[in-house]
Amino acid sequence: MAGARAVMRVFGDAQSGNCYKVQLLLRQLGRPFEWVPVDVLKQETRKAEFLALNPAGQVPLVLWDDGRSLPESNAILLHLAEGTPLLPSDAWARAQVYRWLFWEQYQHEPTVAVARFIVHYLKNPPEQAERLAGLQLRAQRALRLMDEHLARQPFMAGGAYSVADIALYAYTHVAPQGGLPLDDYPALRAWLARVAAQPGHSRMGE
Amino acid sequence: MAGARAVMRVFGDAQSGNCYKVQLLLRQLGRPFEWVPVDVLKQETRKAEFLALNPAGQVPLVLWDDGRSLPESNAILLHLAEGTPLLPSDAWARAQVYRWLFWEQYQHEPTVAVARFIVHYLKNPPEQAERLAGLQLRAQRALRLMDEHLARQPFMAGGAYSVADIALYAYTHVAPQGGLPLDDYPALRAWLARVAAQPGHSRMGE
Repeated sequence: MAGARAVMRVFGDAQSGNCYKVQLLLRQLGRPFEWVPVDVLKQETRKAEFLALNPAGQVPLVLWDDGRSLPESNAILLHLAEGTPLLPSDAWARAQVYRWLFWEQYQHEPTVAVARFIVHYLKNPPEQAERLAGLQLRAQRALRLMDEHLARQPFMAGGAYSVADIALYAYTHVAPQGGLPLDDYPALRAWLARVAAQPGHSRMGE
Repeated sequence: MAGARAVMRVFGDAQSGNCYKVQLLLRQLGRPFEWVPVDVLKQETRKAEFLALNPAGQVPLVLWDDGRSLPESNAILLHLAEGTPLLPSDAWARAQVYRWLFWEQYQHEPTVAVARFIVHYLKNPPEQAERLAGLQLRAQRALRLMDEHLARQPFMAGGAYSVADIALYAYTHVAPQGGLPLDDYPALRAWLARVAAQPGHSRMGE
């Protein structure tokens, strides 16, 4: 894969779980990359210069020195993990990785990450209280579903640590910052500890 | 792949774009399957019997006769299209497919499909007017982004018809049912016609 050898720049916000996913994967794979800080709160993803790279106006974005670029955190994970132990080659194990990556972007991130954004970054403004309550209810359903799943298996997909765990770890481990305590989810907390104990693990914002 | 040979049941709602994606792919691949109707409006996805199959309470769900099951429409597309011309083997073309599949579930489906649901199925209740207006604004941004992308290339990803086109066709072609006219998006309309002209294409609800 040309993409694996060329010099890579990762445009990201250190406080974003979606960006942390890419950073964590690259560090665990031992691949060199340059981190280009982009401040989401300062609306830097909405500037013309950035929109020319990603019209969706979102980080993370990976840019290679040959001009190719790739947005969408979970697409980046799948692309960069291809051929490594973090993305199974077995078709059925791989299907499970796909399943949880899509579930993360549809059910988990839009609730857990947005609740965290409102509480932690916007400092819980009263006019968002009703919206926040709705998000927290749906976020708790997502966290409970993960807890029940992880009570039956050590990792999210295919019986081994994979990019599905990286994707779901990113916002789950900071869920309490969104007013989402994890006390009622023992299997989920044990999984968080297993993920953090993986070789080459690094913490968010480091 | 065992999954390709075993008998497949697809639990789906004929009016759901997410379910239509799976039906369209299987028909285009000429693979036999049994369609099991599940009525979302009648809350059949929330019944205990269905939740035992998919705790996320969503269709589509594919169930094989050996007991394996797979939810998440775009995960199903990737799994079933593996090894066919509808999912490129080239790593970079494949990365583009991933990109648009995740974009579809994060930016397109939650706006275009939900606007359609409110207008077409809930019959535009006044108490949803403000929410609908917000959704339509974001949906138009998504449709414009597609139009600009398709002005430069015939298909969404990798230069050829793929599961990325199937995934995005599903709700785009019925966007007008959500109060989202497509008149201002000529490249998008030309692409809709190209997708509908693919061999083995079948229409939603048929």
